[in-house]
Order: sequence, then structure tokens, then C-alpha cells
Amino acid sequence: MDMAFLSEFPSIEFSRPLFASVLGNTALSMVPGVSGAGPSPKKTVFTPILDAEMITTGAITSMPLKPNTPTGCPTPAVITRAMATLTGIEPVFVNAGLFNPPTVPCIDVYGAPGGDPREGDAVPAARDLLTAGERVGRILSRCADFLVLGECVPGGTTTALCVLRALGYEARVSSSFVENPVHLKEEICEYVLEKVEREGATDALDVVRIGGDPMMPVAAGIASTFEGTLVFAGGTQMLAVDAVLKGLGRSMVPLATTEYVRTDASANFEEAVAAVGAKAYYVDPDFGTIGDAGIGRYCEGEVKEGMGAGGAMFLARVMGYSAEEIRSAILSTVISFR
Amino acid sequence: MDMAFLSEFPSIEFSRPLFASVLGNTALSMVPGVSGAGPSPKKTVFTPILDAEMITTGAITSMPLKPNTPTGCPTPAVITRAMATLTGIEPVFVNAGLFNPPTVPCIDVYGAPGGDPREGDAVPAARDLLTAGERVGRILSRCADFLVLGECVPGGTTTALCVLRALGYEARVSSSFVENPVHLKEEICEYVLEKVEREGATDALDVVRIGGDPMMPVAAGIASTFEGTLVFAGGTQMLAVDAVLKGLGRSMVPLATTEYVRTDASANFEEAVAAVGAKAYYVDPDFGTIGDAGIGRYCEGEVKEGMGAGGAMFLARVMGYSAEEIRSAILSTVISFR
Repeated sequence: MDMAFLSEFPSIEFSRPLFASVLGNTALSMVPGVSGAGPSPKKTVFTPILDAEMITTGAITSMPLKPNTPTGCPTPAVITRAMATLTGIEPVFVNAGLFNPPTVPCIDVYGAPGGDPREGDAVPAARDLLTAGERVGRILSRCADFLVLGECVPGGTTTALCVLRALGYEARVSSSFVENPVHLKEEICEYVLEKVEREGATDALDVVRIGGDPMMPVAAGIASTFEGTLVFAGGTQMLAVDAVLKGLGRSMVPLATTEYVRTDASANFEEAVAAVGAKAYYVDPDFGTIGDAGIGRYCEGEVKEGMGAGGAMFLARVMGYSAEEIRSAILSTVISFR
Repeated sequence: MDMAFLSEFPSIEFSRPLFASVLGNTALSMVPGVSGAGPSPKKTVFTPILDAEMITTGAITSMPLKPNTPTGCPTPAVITRAMATLTGIEPVFVNAGLFNPPTVPCIDVYGAPGGDPREGDAVPAARDLLTAGERVGRILSRCADFLVLGECVPGGTTTALCVLRALGYEARVSSSFVENPVHLKEEICEYVLEKVEREGATDALDVVRIGGDPMMPVAAGIASTFEGTLVFAGGTQMLAVDAVLKGLGRSMVPLATTEYVRTDASANFEEAVAAVGAKAYYVDPDFGTIGDAGIGRYCEGEVKEGMGAGGAMFLARVMGYSAEEIRSAILSTVISFR
């Protein structure tokens, strides 16, 4: 079991590990069919806030909700919460741009949520957000020598698709839907690609401005200044940040994500990672045998990843917790939210 | 010189020092005559934002302003900036509740600015802000083992007066005006004391709710959970936080402030410190001989303290910088903003 839990066991020396996550919104998540991260399209924008609240306090009290998908599948934030409890690391949240104020403290860069790229620039302040992210990276450098940095941006696989394609990578993107709404995403992406071409935009930050989301420049900024060892927690969305970093001529960051992202048949994650020239670690928690039908559905392609859940498990394992300790912590957290 | 720079040299062991400051607004600063911290009463609310911007970036670019008072005296934030440059410590800002969004990243607790206590509860969410502050204290515990925590709340000496009096201390309060507007402050304070009595409020958080400002519960929360050595940077306002901590049955925190606060004839700072049972370090930078007429006016009672300037100098000295290095860093920063 332990051999297969991580695709590769990294050699990282550290004394002060930390998990952080960049929260953001894009208006795209409210377009019906784009995001499954919420009980309804309109409510997807609250998911980063509710996830951060649940991970920080252990419960969602600001709305009458349980941290489960509409189909009864535990959200990835439940996994992240379980890892926070197991490792004793209280995650730090970075607010890159949300429609509503969070209910727990965040490092805030005072960014705006991303717009629908079909209606205008998605992230007009991309350049300022990169600078702000660089400031946050310097703050986080004081707090940790090993940082696992995730994201929570409902609709973010679509902005990731737009940015990866516009930067020249043949990506198909994963989704939290079992039925990946490929056509709608492709349509939005077509629009962004045409605008990028029309403007002759080649700078990675211009691509983010046209079709990205606010998480991307903030995460890229953090990666640019963080002084310790950094690992991105996430799949396609963090890969898009790596593509932005590469476009800016800056160092890319290794990814840690779940096996369910790698095996998503509607996407081509490993190929995209190779195309970008990034490196990925895969975590296989074998949820099919964990003893909960809801989380078992991750194996069938439901949810797969989010709120840095893969990276949170990766961090726990690298800190020395065994696969069984990790699985057992997840199961008891899942049960507590049933 | 060095002997007199600090009233007492503390024995503190640390390896990761940090300076942080809690920003907040109270509607009282917009009442003409309450606060001198800004070019006009209405504009006082921007001072925390502009100070944080200047300290972080080295310049104020979001408004056409120099970091000098209307009378041409360098603001205390210039001193804090000079100490950040000298020590290489980039300050961390905590947004406790402001009318406008900051222009640099802050740890945000998503609080509201304080209201005018004559129009209703000043800080209705005092209890939630204490909890949020406790979360921030846990985050900062990861970043530092020695934290100097200041504040920037225009109008905050008036809320400090209200809270200290309501908690039973015979405080008179310092002010950034040469002519301390004692009567107006006393009038507001009378109102708060009457309301506290009418409600029979004895709990320190109820007193903050009725007549305090959002900085107070956030700073008290940070003090409650910070695991390393903590020193409050400031005069009367941080003393009010100590009084709140004492009222809550929690440990008080030593203060570091300027000699100009101690010798303010319109206040009685040392007596108030003794009454609360707190401890204070005084920093005497001897600005009269530093070589700048504007900052020399601190000796004549103008400005005196703010944005944790006293504590920032205290931190630099405790880190091993000499009094002359500190004075010289301040002078060159002051000159750069002339």
C-alpha cells in the first residue's frame, strides 16, 4: 500500500511545513454547466468561502450546508480538513479575488473576482496581482520552509484550459462532473483563443488578463518569491500556473495531485504536464477500499481533486504519516460530516 | 546615547523577529477635531492604508500625497518604514476593519470599521473579532518567535480613552495634536460611560462593543494565541488592549512606545500603565538632535507616536542595531520624503 500511495517519494528537507490555498472566483462558474463545485451554478461562488470555513473551524455554520456535493459525495475540502487535523497544520488561505467576503481570516490581496472572458478582460489587474502575490510569497517565506500551495476556484478548470491553450499547449481539461461539459468549455476557450490572436498577445500575463482567473497571477507571484521548497497542490489549474511561470521565464513548481486526475479519461493530464515541462507527483489514496461509498465515487471520476486535497495528502505522507494513518483520518472526517 | 535610547534593555531570546500592525478605522476620526492623523477629518480614514502602502512599497502612489502631516512633520510611518529597511523585516499588516480596501496585501479578518458610539454600538462584532484575532495569532505563531505588534487607528486615542475609563482606569489620553482636543474626547467618553453604566456592562468585550474600535479585539485575540514573545508597539491605544486582556482574565503584554508619549503633559501615560498593571519600555530617539526640523517637532509634542513607530525602533535596538544606526536610518528616510 505505502509503495503505491505516492508515485514517487520526494527528498525534501524541512522543519516548518505549511499548507496554503489561494481562493478565487470567476464569473464562469455561474454559467450553467461549467462548474459542479456547488449546489447550484449561482452558489458555486461561495464554495471557496465555505471550504475555508470548514477547514479552519471544522464545520460550516454560515450557511445551512454540509460539505458534500449535491450527489452526496464528500467535497475535497473534507480531505484537506482531515489532513490539517492529522498534521496539526492550520492552513493559511489567500484571497485572490472573491465575490463575497470570507468568514475566516485570509491573507487578502484585494483583487476582484475574474470576469467572463466573453464579456471583457477576465483579469484586468493581472499584473498588479502578480506583484501582490510576490508580496505574499515574501510573507509566507517567514512562515515556512516547505509550502504546499493549493487553490479553490470553481470554474477554474475552464480558465486553466483557456490559458494552457492560449500559451500553446494541447490540453484537455479535467472536471468535477462525471460528464465533463467539454463542449461548453471548448466554446469559451475558442472565444479566448480568438481574442488572444486578435490582440497578438504573447505575454503570459496578457493571456491571464484575457482569459484567466485571479488565482493564477497570485499563485505565480507567490511561487516567484517563496524562498523554501514549494509544491503546487492541484491538477490542471496549478499546471496552468506553471505554464504562466514558464511564459514569464520563471522557475516552474512541481505539482502534487490525485491519481484520479491522472486517470481522468476526458483529460490528458500527464501529456499536458509533459508538454509544459513540469513535474507531477500523484497520490493514490485508494478511496475505493476506504469504507465510504461517497468518497469511493472519486474512483469513478466524480470530484477527483480540489482545495489542494491531493497536495494535502502528499504533505502528510512526506511529513511521515503512513498511508493507513492518512486513510483513517480521512474516513473519520468523512463520517463526521455524514 | 545608547544607555538612554531604551528605558530598559529587555532580555529576549529569538531567532525569527517580526513586526506586524493592526489597521482599523473608527467613524470618530471623521468627527472634526478628534484626529490629526490625516490632511482633513474625512481623509483620516485613509491613513492606515497609505501608511501600509508606504511602509510596504517605500512610496505612496495611490494618492497624490507625501507621508508628512499637514504641518510638514514626517508621519510616524516614516520611522516604521526606516526600521523595516534597516532590519530587513517586511512588516505584516492585519486589517481589522477599514472603510476602504488596502492597496497592499493584509491578513484580513473581514471586520467592519468601528462606528460612532453615540449612534449605536461601536463594534457589534467584538466577540467574533476576538475569535478571528485568535486565528491570526496562530498564523503569526508560525511566522515568528518574537513579534512586535503595533496599530494604526486614526481616532483611536479617543476609543482608547473610552475603553480605559469604562474599565475603571483614570486615564487621560495622548493625542497627535499639539493642542489635545480634550473637551470633545471627554464628551464622547461621557456618552460611552453612561451607556456602559445603563447596560450594566462589566465584560471587557461588551465595553469594546459599546465604545471601542475593531483593532482592540483583534489585537487581544492575537495576544491570546501568539506562542512566542510578544511586545505591543504603541501608547494609550495598546494599553487599552492590555486593559481588555486583563478584563478577560488573559495575560497582558509589555508595551514599547516613545519617550514623547511618556512626557505628554496632557496625558498621564505612566500612571495609566501602572493603574492597569502593565509594563512599558520607552524609546528615546532624541529627535531634537537628529538634523531634521520636521521630525524634531516630535519633541515638542507633535505626533509623538503611531503605526508602532516606537516599537519598531525598540525592535531594531533589541535586534542589535545601535542608536546611531537607527537615528541615521530614520534621517535618511525622512530626507527621501521631503
